[in-house]
Amino acid sequence: MNIKGNLIIISGPSGAGKGTVCKAILDSMTDLHLSISATTRPKRVGERAGADYFFVSKPAFEAMIAGDGLLEWANVYGQYYGTPVEPVVKAVEQGRDVIMEIDVQGALQIRKKFPGCVLIFLAPPSRSTLEQRLRNRATDSDEEIERRLKWAEGEMQKVEFYDYLVLNDEVENAVRKVANIINAERCRPARLDMESLMQQYRNK
Amino acid sequence: MNIKGNLIIISGPSGAGKGTVCKAILDSMTDLHLSISATTRPKRVGERAGADYFFVSKPAFEAMIAGDGLLEWANVYGQYYGTPVEPVVKAVEQGRDVIMEIDVQGALQIRKKFPGCVLIFLAPPSRSTLEQRLRNRATDSDEEIERRLKWAEGEMQKVEFYDYLVLNDEVENAVRKVANIINAERCRPARLDMESLMQQYRNK
Repeated sequence: MNIKGNLIIISGPSGAGKGTVCKAILDSMTDLHLSISATTRPKRVGERAGADYFFVSKPAFEAMIAGDGLLEWANVYGQYYGTPVEPVVKAVEQGRDVIMEIDVQGALQIRKKFPGCVLIFLAPPSRSTLEQRLRNRATDSDEEIERRLKWAEGEMQKVEFYDYLVLNDEVENAVRKVANIINAERCRPARLDMESLMQQYRNK
Repeated sequence: MNIKGNLIIISGPSGAGKGTVCKAILDSMTDLHLSISATTRPKRVGERAGADYFFVSKPAFEAMIAGDGLLEWANVYGQYYGTPVEPVVKAVEQGRDVIMEIDVQGALQIRKKFPGCVLIFLAPPSRSTLEQRLRNRATDSDEEIERRLKWAEGEMQKVEFYDYLVLNDEVENAVRKVANIINAERCRPARLDMESLMQQYRNK
């Protein structure tokens, strides 16, 4: 049977654990295709081009914007970040499920361009857990952490625009729920070619 | 967190294996509530009232129809069959998922009265498998089997009105997929009380 792939988006506030859950789900479901973002910021030590990011020049990125070549993009402190549309469409048309992690604003941009995508909101179980996670990163000042916590509370209100809500209380629980969602979405009739279903039904 | 229950409907052509899959899923997910149909036909040997069916009189059934007390109903060879709405609504409001098996026409009736229900189309993997299953029952004549096969082909076209399609190639596969769907549907934001989510987020 011909099956089209889904675009699965793991999204949520900073500190919800998107990266950890996304990595774990890629380990357990090896047929998933990870979507790689493009950015104009310089490559950091240890990062691999084409694996962590596609590193591109500003003119190249602006050409992608102008050519409608991005599912979403943002300019953060003068550097561009975005999701190239072509690899996603290619994988989905080959019947592969694509997974990506992205912030709330990016996810809502993608929903507009790719309405059939599957939006999963990954929520931190509580404000204090989120605060602990942000502090454990030890990259942000107290003011920055306070700002992120306030921001996260606002983002929680956006969950109504999502298809699913997964509480990241324990990583294994969250990963199991995301896997359930991906497997359930594979059973959507819209993803199946009706003609090939009927042919299988008649002839086999 | 307050969670509302879902109404999960296992539906599909006669011989698709609805009863087998429904029984297996009830065995593996013990928190599901099975919806029991009402009928006016006489109780058969071995059947238990309130477990296999609610056995009711014709006037009582017709009063339920008149009082909008049924999610769906049909008159088959002069006997009424239908799904009482009250036990379903009660269980769902208590946060329990309700499961039922029903034919395609009944499922599409329920979708109209209960738009938030989860419609799962259980499909036989092929015409020859379906034919084999119908013959193994040894209850129908050749003409009846031929009529059912033709009818099933027409019902397959209704899959577009369903939320999910599960091919019943192997019972264990089908049961696993149905369990995935039930668990994924438990992650719908619409089922969660937003206020209690935010409270949990703020205070815990």
